[in-house]
Amino acid sequence: MIEEKGILFILSGPSGVGKGTVRKELFERKTELRYSISITTRGMRPGEVDGVDYFFKTNEEFERLIDENKLLEYAKFVNNYYGTPKDYVMETLDKGHDVFLEIEVQGAMQVKKNFPEGVFIFLFPPSLEELKNRIVNRGTENEDVIIDRLKEARNEIEMMDAYDYVVVNDDVDKAVAKIQAIIQSEHCKRERIAAQYKKILEDELS
Amino acid sequence: MIEEKGILFILSGPSGVGKGTVRKELFERKTELRYSISITTRGMRPGEVDGVDYFFKTNEEFERLIDENKLLEYAKFVNNYYGTPKDYVMETLDKGHDVFLEIEVQGAMQVKKNFPEGVFIFLFPPSLEELKNRIVNRGTENEDVIIDRLKEARNEIEMMDAYDYVVVNDDVDKAVAKIQAIIQSEHCKRERIAAQYKKILEDELS
Repeated sequence: MIEEKGILFILSGPSGVGKGTVRKELFERKTELRYSISITTRGMRPGEVDGVDYFFKTNEEFERLIDENKLLEYAKFVNNYYGTPKDYVMETLDKGHDVFLEIEVQGAMQVKKNFPEGVFIFLFPPSLEELKNRIVNRGTENEDVIIDRLKEARNEIEMMDAYDYVVVNDDVDKAVAKIQAIIQSEHCKRERIAAQYKKILEDELS
Repeated sequence: MIEEKGILFILSGPSGVGKGTVRKELFERKTELRYSISITTRGMRPGEVDGVDYFFKTNEEFERLIDENKLLEYAKFVNNYYGTPKDYVMETLDKGHDVFLEIEVQGAMQVKKNFPEGVFIFLFPPSLEELKNRIVNRGTENEDVIIDRLKEARNEIEMMDAYDYVVVNDDVDKAVAKIQAIIQSEHCKRERIAAQYKKILEDELS
């Protein structure tokens, strides 16, 4: 038997591209992917369970995790920290399970720095014309806002260079099928499995 | 619209692994893959059509193709040449069609040298124990033959390092599904498509 480590997949892309919808659809299908449970400093809400919904930590605990480089990525929203725990992800991968993260572009860049062997998938806007229309329409008459949005879009597109794959979200089912194909093909990558095949073969042949 | 060039896929692996069976099953499914038509110096048989079954050439013509580096790979069997025409493959790729070659390991190594941007898929024996048993059984009592076969198997496995993917042929349907996933995911590779997306986006945004 081939003992294979799990693979970390990171789905990201510009805000509004539909990352959440694609991720939900992916997990509604038969999958052996594992979610990554985030760490947060915000208060536990009724019905939430520590270690299921989130790992709940104090500010001090969270900042120690930052100092000790125990987070694959983190960000602060409305005075609360949110982050991806490195140890939990690593242990899940070591057990042979693939882990799937759906995060913002900034977070993905932090993961890339901390775990470059992850597989980075960039979700691309459904239609380029639509993106342009959205940008122009959002700005209405204010030309400065339009220019800012165009710059933002350009910056987001530049980020694509750090990714392994680009999937166009023109149709949720098609995008999910492409992500499933990426997951399956990554498990066939020679550099991941050749050494193990050779070792097993040599053990058997010896 | 994204104008994408086709991708050259090369399926290879040790003889007896089941390359032909897998290729046939792949082409029986809905696919936009194109066969590569081989060039040969052997005589045309009744019913065969030049440019359909083979490109038929004389010895002199074939040897000129070799000299002019017009073949992605070639070999001589029973005094006849067989080869893969570079121009035909390139033109088909330029038209945006993927091309699929199913060839021997030696031929695949030639393609790798002439067209390293191809996607090389190594078909792995269905079972390692079975491979060993086959090797041992083929040699019966002659230990020299067994040792030779083991060496051959080792050499074939070493060739795996030149490939991009390894697909185990434990089950034809599963192997075909993996190859289909590889084809789909290769079309999502960032380095293939990011430049075009960026260009189109900048054209649209300008």
